[in-house]
Amino acid sequence: MGLRIVVIGANAAGGKAASKAKRYNPEAEVILIDKGKFISYAECGIPYYVAGYPSESERLMSTSSGVIRDVNYFKAKGIRARINSEAVEIDRNRKCIDVIDTETAEKSVIPYDKLIIATGSSPSIPKVENINLKNILTVKTIEDAILLKQRALTGNHACIVGGGLIGFEMADALKSRGMSVTVVEMREQLLYGFLDPDMALLLKEHLEQQGVTIMTGSKITGFKGDSSVKEVVVNDKEIPVDLVVLGVGIRPNIELARKAGLEIGVTGAIAVDSGQCTSDPDIFACGDCCETTNLVTGKKTYIPLGTTANKQGRVTGINAAGGYATFPGIVGTGIVKVLDFNIGRTGLTETDAKANGFDIETIINKAYDKPSYFPGAKQITLKLIAEKGTGRILGLQGLGEGGVDKRIDIAATAITFGATAENLSELDLAYAPPYSTVMDSLIVAANAIKNRLIQT
Amino acid sequence: MGLRIVVIGANAAGGKAASKAKRYNPEAEVILIDKGKFISYAECGIPYYVAGYPSESERLMSTSSGVIRDVNYFKAKGIRARINSEAVEIDRNRKCIDVIDTETAEKSVIPYDKLIIATGSSPSIPKVENINLKNILTVKTIEDAILLKQRALTGNHACIVGGGLIGFEMADALKSRGMSVTVVEMREQLLYGFLDPDMALLLKEHLEQQGVTIMTGSKITGFKGDSSVKEVVVNDKEIPVDLVVLGVGIRPNIELARKAGLEIGVTGAIAVDSGQCTSDPDIFACGDCCETTNLVTGKKTYIPLGTTANKQGRVTGINAAGGYATFPGIVGTGIVKVLDFNIGRTGLTETDAKANGFDIETIINKAYDKPSYFPGAKQITLKLIAEKGTGRILGLQGLGEGGVDKRIDIAATAITFGATAENLSELDLAYAPPYSTVMDSLIVAANAIKNRLIQT
Repeated sequence: MGLRIVVIGANAAGGKAASKAKRYNPEAEVILIDKGKFISYAECGIPYYVAGYPSESERLMSTSSGVIRDVNYFKAKGIRARINSEAVEIDRNRKCIDVIDTETAEKSVIPYDKLIIATGSSPSIPKVENINLKNILTVKTIEDAILLKQRALTGNHACIVGGGLIGFEMADALKSRGMSVTVVEMREQLLYGFLDPDMALLLKEHLEQQGVTIMTGSKITGFKGDSSVKEVVVNDKEIPVDLVVLGVGIRPNIELARKAGLEIGVTGAIAVDSGQCTSDPDIFACGDCCETTNLVTGKKTYIPLGTTANKQGRVTGINAAGGYATFPGIVGTGIVKVLDFNIGRTGLTETDAKANGFDIETIINKAYDKPSYFPGAKQITLKLIAEKGTGRILGLQGLGEGGVDKRIDIAATAITFGATAENLSELDLAYAPPYSTVMDSLIVAANAIKNRLIQT
Repeated sequence: MGLRIVVIGANAAGGKAASKAKRYNPEAEVILIDKGKFISYAECGIPYYVAGYPSESERLMSTSSGVIRDVNYFKAKGIRARINSEAVEIDRNRKCIDVIDTETAEKSVIPYDKLIIATGSSPSIPKVENINLKNILTVKTIEDAILLKQRALTGNHACIVGGGLIGFEMADALKSRGMSVTVVEMREQLLYGFLDPDMALLLKEHLEQQGVTIMTGSKITGFKGDSSVKEVVVNDKEIPVDLVVLGVGIRPNIELARKAGLEIGVTGAIAVDSGQCTSDPDIFACGDCCETTNLVTGKKTYIPLGTTANKQGRVTGINAAGGYATFPGIVGTGIVKVLDFNIGRTGLTETDAKANGFDIETIINKAYDKPSYFPGAKQITLKLIAEKGTGRILGLQGLGEGGVDKRIDIAATAITFGATAENLSELDLAYAPPYSTVMDSLIVAANAIKNRLIQT
């Protein structure tokens, strides 16, 4: 009998972990279970599905293509995948899990040698009046995606609750469908935690110019309607709506792990070591249900993202299958497209850096991403943050119509290796007029912060 | 009396050095001389000027705008700029230079405390029959640019001599003007030294599909015509042409330095230390006339590029003005756009790496730059090179319609810091569907080479 590896949750992290475990150790028996009807779908693609991107985007939701990895997809790899199978309890002593069939309520027990928890995350639901009305939707499941698209095609007014990443991806999609969009954010700034207030203000001004209604510092106290939502109550005013999208936050699905007595970290997500192992040496966790390390601060952090889930899934699969791999952590990179603006960040914001006790210098620089004479040259505003004394780059934020993603990725790489402002200014980046200015905007920002660091 | 700094050559490096010196030390007297009629023009913009990019591109050639930095531009900064002034000799004992006015032949002597040589480079001219016929042009000066554009607007058939970077930028521009384009390259591959033969072959196949005639392993033995070129003689066949563009290489302008007894490096360019100082402590050099260090091999190299010239100019200006700055070197990054293909490289090619004694592993991976369902998703082919044993990333080449520049810049940054394949695979890059796949093509390549490094 080979090693038996059971994976709970079949989306990004779980699907990857199962595949990698089987590939690493073909003798192992790999069982992948998921409580849903659909497994391993492209959750990040939902806003683009709603926006109606080309016919191929239908693939997102279709089990007939390769994009959705269904039971047969896993079967072909030698993995037993079971849908409609909810893990309700982990018995660590007997090393098995109790599973309930969500359609038949039938119970079963699956023994494991190594267990991988990839239970993901769930959208937070605000506790306000009439939250259960129809057409108040989250952005998580395939069922959500189908309803969101239906409403996008028939409704006129959308309200996005929460000015965060998923909220803005949906704002973009719904606006592209011709809906009017109002974003309601409780905090005084958009993309709280993601951007500093000064950068968030530039974004707000731009979105307002583009016809998006932004209400920061505004609280939703309830919804009105009979069966479907008709009005959102914000700051005691009623706004008519056909669709409400909830994007107020995401929390890790840790109930199963907590019940089993596994250690929960300071962030509220499952604690794991650099090999994705939980406090039980036979149980791993990966993806949105677990925390990770911020490589800039060295502290634990919870930033659930598909790309991290994939990398952790790979490492987890190898380790569960008897190999050795590590996932050191993240530097806090993220990006979002809203209308014609690209908004990205990596490392620490000014706010983060100060909260972590860093003595910092910052600079904001606006520049073209290509020579101004070049067709398609666009501006980007970069905010660079460095530590005084050492000159170490701590973070970068960028926004604008131009190539923000490239500068964010360069900075993410530099920050990973502890680069200083001097190092950043010396980088040998690819220059030709179709790609950048002769001194790239990021190098200009690095030179500018270097001058400040010297002067102070 | 303040420090007197004299700068010979007023393009990218010299113009930057003069400006930086004056800004760093406002008390210094900074004199900038150039033998040409135009100074500090955007040489890299010539192919785009020829392609006729928007009306603003006329700026490239117009002294009435900010893009050309004319005498008054420098005057406003407190720098004395003199055009038509050719430095013909450096007297290191008396610390002065002899200058001839190229229009009046008048001689003058300019004393210096610190001298900056930024004499640039010149296109190589092949020694073949009738090379002096009209419409056989290089891509260097504003006069070249004007003639190239005239021919692009009136001619039908262009021949590019040399399948290198500038040749391809011109091939792109001339094809966009509706000319038929034949590229003649003496070597058996395109972009020799820039790409490995396997990658160069992919480029050749693509360009041929796009209607460019490529003749590799082909030698031009002469030109025919009365006053203007009418035919190119290649492999003993005659090809009718209206325009010939010479792109067979670039050599550093070192005559002045050599005559003055300054050390010339192994690459044939002026030798400098990390502060851009020559073998004479009062003389600096920067830009296309000097060599630099390859940070991967630690050896001297000569890769003249505008972006390097700018960075070196900055460092040189500071040091000549009494400050302290260093330019550590380059990793060998470059990029070029040809029709719809982006072609980039950084670090060492497989050929370079083997020539430098590295024991290596390589991988070629073709992937989409964004999720395939996303509008505008395009493929790129990446070739990654790593050292066996250490796993250190030595180089990356990329080509395709997709976002090559971003992956090259990430790799250039990683290589600068000595990243391993493992490090590269763990990078926290910015992911959202408009920007990349959930596992970026570069991370996929890093994982693939990691697997190979482990197996071998």
